[in-house]
Amino acid sequence: MGSSGSAAASSRPIGVFDSGVGGLTVLRALGAEMPRERFVYLGDTARLPYGTKSPETVIRYAVQAADALIERGVKALIVACNTASSVALPAMRERYRDMTVIGVVEPGAEAAVAASRSGHIAVIGTEATVRGGAYQRAITQRRPQAQVRALACQMFVALAEEGWTSGPVARAAAEQYLAPLFGPATPGVGESAADTLVLACTHFPVLQAVIRSVVGPRVVIVDSAATTARAAHSALSERGLLGGEDAARMPDRMRFLATDGVARFAAIGGRFLARSIDARDVELVDL
Amino acid sequence: MGSSGSAAASSRPIGVFDSGVGGLTVLRALGAEMPRERFVYLGDTARLPYGTKSPETVIRYAVQAADALIERGVKALIVACNTASSVALPAMRERYRDMTVIGVVEPGAEAAVAASRSGHIAVIGTEATVRGGAYQRAITQRRPQAQVRALACQMFVALAEEGWTSGPVARAAAEQYLAPLFGPATPGVGESAADTLVLACTHFPVLQAVIRSVVGPRVVIVDSAATTARAAHSALSERGLLGGEDAARMPDRMRFLATDGVARFAAIGGRFLARSIDARDVELVDL
Repeated sequence: MGSSGSAAASSRPIGVFDSGVGGLTVLRALGAEMPRERFVYLGDTARLPYGTKSPETVIRYAVQAADALIERGVKALIVACNTASSVALPAMRERYRDMTVIGVVEPGAEAAVAASRSGHIAVIGTEATVRGGAYQRAITQRRPQAQVRALACQMFVALAEEGWTSGPVARAAAEQYLAPLFGPATPGVGESAADTLVLACTHFPVLQAVIRSVVGPRVVIVDSAATTARAAHSALSERGLLGGEDAARMPDRMRFLATDGVARFAAIGGRFLARSIDARDVELVDL
Repeated sequence: MGSSGSAAASSRPIGVFDSGVGGLTVLRALGAEMPRERFVYLGDTARLPYGTKSPETVIRYAVQAADALIERGVKALIVACNTASSVALPAMRERYRDMTVIGVVEPGAEAAVAASRSGHIAVIGTEATVRGGAYQRAITQRRPQAQVRALACQMFVALAEEGWTSGPVARAAAEQYLAPLFGPATPGVGESAADTLVLACTHFPVLQAVIRSVVGPRVVIVDSAATTARAAHSALSERGLLGGEDAARMPDRMRFLATDGVARFAAIGGRFLARSIDARDVELVDL
């Protein structure tokens, strides 16, 4: 499979990989952006979360997941997981040289740099994403004068999975994490407060309203799902890999693979995909 | 290795297994209860949490972890993880017939039944522990008229790991979960409110103060760490397996194995063990 398009190649599905269900926010954006594409989504639910694991382990798991998607004949690979994108993308591009491999970090950094006037950008994600520093590097590569503050917000993952996306607990957690970065109560931050906030975890878009209520109306919130979908669209288009058929109403347009707990995947996944998932449409795979 | 004691057997360490760092609350109680014992603790940090996984996966992982401890010559096996105790204990006892295998469920149920006057008992734990129903069964086996309400409190796990054990987020989460079970604002609950609350997750003891502030002073809170330590002490004593040497000051009294992230294990683990852990004392193992 070379990088040049072919009819056979373009009719194949796009593989989307995440550590769990959070990447379904990216799948949702991909589906909206590219109505002629079919998708196979793999959530490594047996081994989530990746966000607290070492780089070596994240790379090993990400490669196993990508191999499983490639065995299923995908024409491109979207790494929807921020942690895997931050930590494992170089290893994956090395391993799959002929495959279009797109992560969420570069599109997110691109969007942040475009949105920020002041160059003061805040990034919130998992521990591993923040520690890995990929967003920080991707932003300063594009804008060397940018000042990036990155903060791990592990509790947001739990809130999103519990479905507590509004209410007092979500509000208190958002204040605890974000008020020091954006809040009016912080003396001395003044002009250096960030004007742009990157949601560098696929779980965080479902908390966007409560995050907005804490950071205020002026901060631009960059959700990497939408920006990644646009980047994937361009890359596939450039390589002649876009599908030709209207896939939007195909019953098997989106297939789901999970490494554990298909019932839980379907139940919680619906929250992130913003449509219900039937547990019978989720296939259990062993990596 | 039979169940009868021998000098060689009794001098061997006790194996303690958990999905991550939470079981260190049990290790701490074991160390206090049995000053003449040495311990090897294994935290399956690469694959935590177990609390959201299917029973099949929990059993497979628990057996792999137990095998690794048995290879290291432990004389008994304490399953500190509530999820693994709930789901995998029968399979483990079947597999390790000559080994003393102690979980946290039976001691916790025993203590709850002894503490409750009314027989109305609440159990809080992970999704898998609650769904598995082992506590509910263990309590009603001992007291058939008991009324048990079990509630999954996943957010408590994240709070404990983040170190947010007090403050507004912990308080709001405790109210959200527990006020419906214990709070005065619930009309109609009245006499049927539980008088005993079982902390059926090793992460929860570090949240005991905030839980207490919500449930009020009259509810008996059962922490299965202390009750499990006493049960282990009795079982080892009965089988002549107690160690004879004062181990409390041995520099290698507690050894730690983790399947990922030794630095994180040491950093977060200290919170649960209530003493600092040097990352150099944590060995990385692959299961």
